[in-house]
Amino acid sequence: MSILESITGPDDVKKLPEEALEPLCGELRDFLIQSVSKTGGHLASNLGVVELTVALHRVYNTASDRVVFDVGHQCYTHKILTGRKDRFSTLRQYGGLSGFPKPYESEHDAFIAGHASNSVSVALGMAKARTLRHEDYDVVCVIGDGAMTGGLAYEGLTAAAASGESMVIILNDNNMSIDPNVGGMASLLQRMRVRPGYFSFKRWYREIFSHVPPVYRFNHDFKEWIKSRVLPDNMLSAIGLEYMGPVDGHDLKQLESVLGWAKEMRRPVLVHVLTQKGRGCRYAQEHPERYHGVGPFDPETGEIKASGRCFSDVFGESLCELGEKDPKIAAITAAMASGTGIDRFAESFPNRFFDVGIAEGHASAFAAGLAKQGILPVFGVYSSFLQRGYDMLIHDVSLQHLHAVFGLDRAGIVGSDGETHHGIFDIAYLRSVPGMQILCPASFSEMHDYLERALFHMDGPVALRYPRGGEGEYRASSEGDEQILRQGADLTMICYGTMVNEALSAARQLEQKGISAEVVKINRLGPEDYSVTLSSLEKTGALLASEEVCASGCVGEQILSQAAVHGITLRGARLLNLGCGIVAHGSRDLLMRDQGIDAAAMTEAGMALAGKAE
Amino acid sequence: MSILESITGPDDVKKLPEEALEPLCGELRDFLIQSVSKTGGHLASNLGVVELTVALHRVYNTASDRVVFDVGHQCYTHKILTGRKDRFSTLRQYGGLSGFPKPYESEHDAFIAGHASNSVSVALGMAKARTLRHEDYDVVCVIGDGAMTGGLAYEGLTAAAASGESMVIILNDNNMSIDPNVGGMASLLQRMRVRPGYFSFKRWYREIFSHVPPVYRFNHDFKEWIKSRVLPDNMLSAIGLEYMGPVDGHDLKQLESVLGWAKEMRRPVLVHVLTQKGRGCRYAQEHPERYHGVGPFDPETGEIKASGRCFSDVFGESLCELGEKDPKIAAITAAMASGTGIDRFAESFPNRFFDVGIAEGHASAFAAGLAKQGILPVFGVYSSFLQRGYDMLIHDVSLQHLHAVFGLDRAGIVGSDGETHHGIFDIAYLRSVPGMQILCPASFSEMHDYLERALFHMDGPVALRYPRGGEGEYRASSEGDEQILRQGADLTMICYGTMVNEALSAARQLEQKGISAEVVKINRLGPEDYSVTLSSLEKTGALLASEEVCASGCVGEQILSQAAVHGITLRGARLLNLGCGIVAHGSRDLLMRDQGIDAAAMTEAGMALAGKAE
Repeated sequence: MSILESITGPDDVKKLPEEALEPLCGELRDFLIQSVSKTGGHLASNLGVVELTVALHRVYNTASDRVVFDVGHQCYTHKILTGRKDRFSTLRQYGGLSGFPKPYESEHDAFIAGHASNSVSVALGMAKARTLRHEDYDVVCVIGDGAMTGGLAYEGLTAAAASGESMVIILNDNNMSIDPNVGGMASLLQRMRVRPGYFSFKRWYREIFSHVPPVYRFNHDFKEWIKSRVLPDNMLSAIGLEYMGPVDGHDLKQLESVLGWAKEMRRPVLVHVLTQKGRGCRYAQEHPERYHGVGPFDPETGEIKASGRCFSDVFGESLCELGEKDPKIAAITAAMASGTGIDRFAESFPNRFFDVGIAEGHASAFAAGLAKQGILPVFGVYSSFLQRGYDMLIHDVSLQHLHAVFGLDRAGIVGSDGETHHGIFDIAYLRSVPGMQILCPASFSEMHDYLERALFHMDGPVALRYPRGGEGEYRASSEGDEQILRQGADLTMICYGTMVNEALSAARQLEQKGISAEVVKINRLGPEDYSVTLSSLEKTGALLASEEVCASGCVGEQILSQAAVHGITLRGARLLNLGCGIVAHGSRDLLMRDQGIDAAAMTEAGMALAGKAE
Repeated sequence: MSILESITGPDDVKKLPEEALEPLCGELRDFLIQSVSKTGGHLASNLGVVELTVALHRVYNTASDRVVFDVGHQCYTHKILTGRKDRFSTLRQYGGLSGFPKPYESEHDAFIAGHASNSVSVALGMAKARTLRHEDYDVVCVIGDGAMTGGLAYEGLTAAAASGESMVIILNDNNMSIDPNVGGMASLLQRMRVRPGYFSFKRWYREIFSHVPPVYRFNHDFKEWIKSRVLPDNMLSAIGLEYMGPVDGHDLKQLESVLGWAKEMRRPVLVHVLTQKGRGCRYAQEHPERYHGVGPFDPETGEIKASGRCFSDVFGESLCELGEKDPKIAAITAAMASGTGIDRFAESFPNRFFDVGIAEGHASAFAAGLAKQGILPVFGVYSSFLQRGYDMLIHDVSLQHLHAVFGLDRAGIVGSDGETHHGIFDIAYLRSVPGMQILCPASFSEMHDYLERALFHMDGPVALRYPRGGEGEYRASSEGDEQILRQGADLTMICYGTMVNEALSAARQLEQKGISAEVVKINRLGPEDYSVTLSSLEKTGALLASEEVCASGCVGEQILSQAAVHGITLRGARLLNLGCGIVAHGSRDLLMRDQGIDAAAMTEAGMALAGKAE
C-alpha cells in the first residue's frame, strides 16, 4: 500500500513520521498529474503547493482551524488529504467535486474561493469573530503573489496589520500568477527574493528557539531586535505586519517549523513562502502558464488535446487587426492576457498594451483616464471579474460618457469553474451603468464586426459580451440592433449572443409541432426600446426569452416592461434564465439543461405558450 | 481692490509677486468661510489646501496640464482661481456650481471626482495617453491620506511606480479623512511625519539645486544617494516611486519649489505634503470633522444651524439598542462613522466596532468572514459607495448565503453633492445579488423595526435602504412585505421608502380629480413575486410606479415583468424614475421635480393613465 492510500484524513498526515513526508509528496504529485490529465483542471499551481499543504495539515486542524485559500484553484492537495481522494476523478464535472473550496463539500473547506485577493479580509473577519466569541481556533490564509496585486489584498493586509489579531497570512510567492506579475509590488517581492544571508539566519533561529515554542509569546522585544537586524526590511513590516521569510516552500521541515512559529506568535504574521509552479513535472515547470487551467492532456508528454477556435481568439485577432489601423487603440488586461486572447495585441503593440495585475478597478479607472485624453482603450476581462470594476464603470467611465470598450469574455455559463466564475450578472450590472451599450456577438464574424463597430461607430461606454468556447450553427454577421432571423406568427423568441443557436434549434422543433416562432436576435442591448421586438410582440402576442443570466435585471424583464408601458397586450410570456444566479459546475450543456434554458426547455415553454403542452 | 478681486484666472496667480501670495491666501480663506457659511459645503478640507492650490496654479497650467483631484471636495480654491469666483454663491445649488470638479464646468477641471482613491489610476491613464499621443503636458493628482486607505489607490500607485511615466502624485496628508484614519497605512504615515531632520535637509537641498532645475533630469544617481541617506525610508520608495517630502503644506515658497522639482523629475514622483484641515479658522481647525461637509453656519462663531433628526440617527440609535441585546452584533464603517450614525455604536461597543477606512470591498469581505463564524455584522455605508463592494456582495457574502446586514444610507437622491453621490443604482445592483433581500424603511419607527427584522428574523444577505434626511407624513410602521396603504379602483401606485409620502400626496390629489388610486407600499424588495401588488393590478389594470433610482433594473420593471408572466393584462403602465441615472446637484425637491418623479408628476401620470389628462 502506498503512503497516500493510507491517508483517510488529516489526522493520518499528522501521524506520519518525518521520513514518510517526502515520499508522500511524490505520490501526491503523481496522483495530481494522473488525475488532472484526465479531468482537466489547475495543474501547475497545485503542483507548487504540495509541501505547503502537507505542512498546513501537520500544523493546523482544518476541521476547526480556518484555512482560507485565496482564489482557491490550489486546493487539490487539500481536498485529497481531507477525505476526497476517492471522488477526485469527478473533479469539475457536473455533480462531482468542485475545483475550488466549498464549505458545502467539506468542513475542512473554510470559505468559498474563486475571485482573487479576498482571503486576508475574510480571514481577518474570522479571526475577529473568534476573538469576539471567545473561541479558540487558528485562522490562516494562503494568498499568491498574483493576488497581492489586487487592492483588496492591500486593504486586508493593512487592516490585519492594525488589528493585532492572531492570524497567519501565507504569501505563496511563485513569481508568476496566470501571467507574469506586474507593478511595483511584484518588483518588491523580486528584490526580497534575492536578499542574501537568509538561510543561515534561519538555521540559527531554529536552533535557538525550536525547543521552546511558547517563548515566542514573551520575547517580543528580542525578536523585534533580531528581525530588524537580519530579516529583510520591506513594505509589509513597514505597515506593521510581522514578517517571516522567505521560506523554501519545497522544504517540508522548514515549512512545518516556520508555520508552527508563526502560529505561536499570536499576532498577525506574514509568512513568505517561495514555491515553484509545476514543481516535479517537467512540462508544467517549463510552461506553467500552459498548465495553469488546462484540459485533458497526456500525463507522460504533457501534450494537450487541441481545442477549437474560440471567441477569445477572434477577439485577440480582431483587436490586432484594428490596432494596426488605428494607433490610438490601447489594450488592457488584468493578468489575463492569454485567457482573453489579448496577448496577440501585446506582442504586436507592446507600447499600447497594459497588464495591470489582478486590479479590475484600476484597469477601469485607468481606461477612463486614457479615454479622457484621446486614446481608445479596450479592456479585455472576464465578465465575472469585471464585477470588481462596477463602481469605476459608473463613476469614472460613464458619468462623463467616455468612449471605452470592455470586452467581457466568459459571459454566461462558463462550465467547470462553477458558481464563482459564471458571467451571469453582467447584464444586470452593465444595464445600470449610465449610457452603457452592450453588443452581443453570436458568431466569430460578428465578434470581429462588433469590435470594429464598438471602436469606430459608437461613443460612450460599450461592452462586448461573448462566451467561453466557440460559435455554433449561426455564422452570419447581423447588422443593426435587432434582427428577425426567422419569421413566425405564434410567439416571439428573443435571444442574444450564442443563445441564438438554442433559439433557432427550438424554433425548428416547434415548427415540427405546428407552432410558428418568430426569432428576434438582439445585437445591441441598451436602454432604449426594442422596437423590432415590440412590433413582433404586437403581432404574436407572446414572448419567450431564454437567457444565460440571473433573473433580476434580465433583458426579458426589460422587454416585458417596455411592452406594458407601450400598451402591448400579451397572451403569455415565459422568461427562462438562471434564477438567483447560483449555478454549479459542470459542462455548459448539462448546466443549461439543468437550469432549463436550452433548446429543449425553450421548445417546451414555446408549446406551453402556444397552448400545446405535451 | 483686494488681491483676490484682481484674479480673473490662473495667469493672474502666476504673475503675482511672492509677497502677495500670503495675503492672497488670507483673502481666499475669508472668502471660503463667508461663502460656505451661506451655501454650506466642504469647509475644513478646502481651508487646508489653499496654499497647495495656489502653488499648483503657479507651477502648472491647468487648462492644458491635467490636475486630477481625488474625491474632489477640496477643489473650491481651484474653482475660485479659475474664473468661477463670481458664481461661487451658487455652489451646490440647483443650476449652480458643483461642489466637485466637473469638466463640463471648466477646461480647468481635468476629470470628474466624488468617489475616493481613483485619482492615481486616472492620472496614470492620462499620462500614458499623453505619451502614446506624443503630446506635451503635465499630469498631477492630489490625493488625501484618507483616500490612500483604499485598495484602488494602491493599485494605482503600484502601476504608476512601474510605469516610469512622468507624473506627480501629491499626497495631501492631514492625518484625518472624514473620521480619523485607520489601518497600517495610516500609522506608517504617522511615523513618517515625525521623522526628524527633514527641514534642514530641505533647506540645504534647495540651496544646492534651486538655481539649476533641469539638472534634476541628469543627476539621478546622486539624488538617489542623497535620498537613501536623508529622506525617510518608506513603503512608497520600496515599491519604486520617487518620494519627496514631507513638505509644509502651508509654506508657499517651499511648496512651489518642491512641486517645481517634482515636475522636472520626469518620472513618477510622490510629493508628501502636510496640511492642516480647517487651517486659519479656529472652529474648523478644532473640529474639522464637524466642518467637513456642513450646512449653513455663522461665520463668526461657527454655530451650525440645527438640522432635524434623520434616518442615520435612528439607524445609529437602533443599532446601539439591538447591540445591547445581542453581543454577536458587530458594526462596520468605511470611514463614515459619523455620517452613517454608527459612531454611537462605536462609543458603546468599541470592541465590536470596525472602521476599515475607505475600503468598501474589504468591509464587505470582512463582514462575510465575521458572518461565517457566527457574528452578526452590520455594515453602514452610503449607497453610492457600496458600488465598490458589488463583487464581494456576490462572491463573499451571497454565494454562501451568509447573514450580513448592509445599511445603505443616502439611498436615492442625495441633493447637493450631485451626480457622483446619488444612491440610485442600488436597486439594480442589489437585486442581482443572489438571495439579497432589501428592506425599505419609510419612517423612523420602520427604521428601527426593520433593522431588528433584518438582524433577528431574516437570514442571508439583507440590505436596508434609507434616504438622506428625515421622515415625512408617513410615520407608521408597516409589517409584512407589502401593505396597501390606501384602497383604490382606478390604478395601482407602488412605492417604497420615503417615496410613500409622494405617493400618498399624489393619491389625494388624484382623488380630488375623481381618480381612485390604490397605494401599495412595498416594505421588502426581493426576487419573489409581489403578490399583493399583482392582485391590486388585476383589480385596477394600471400601474404607476415612481422610484428614486435609475430606470434599468428598477422595481417597476420587475413588477411589470411579473404581471406579464402571470398573464395580468394592463390597460396602461407608467414608470417614473431617474432614467439613465445621471442626476445633477441641487435640493432633493427641485431634483425630484426636475426628474419628474414627485407627487405632481405622479398625479399627472395618474391622470393620463386614467384617461383624464388635463
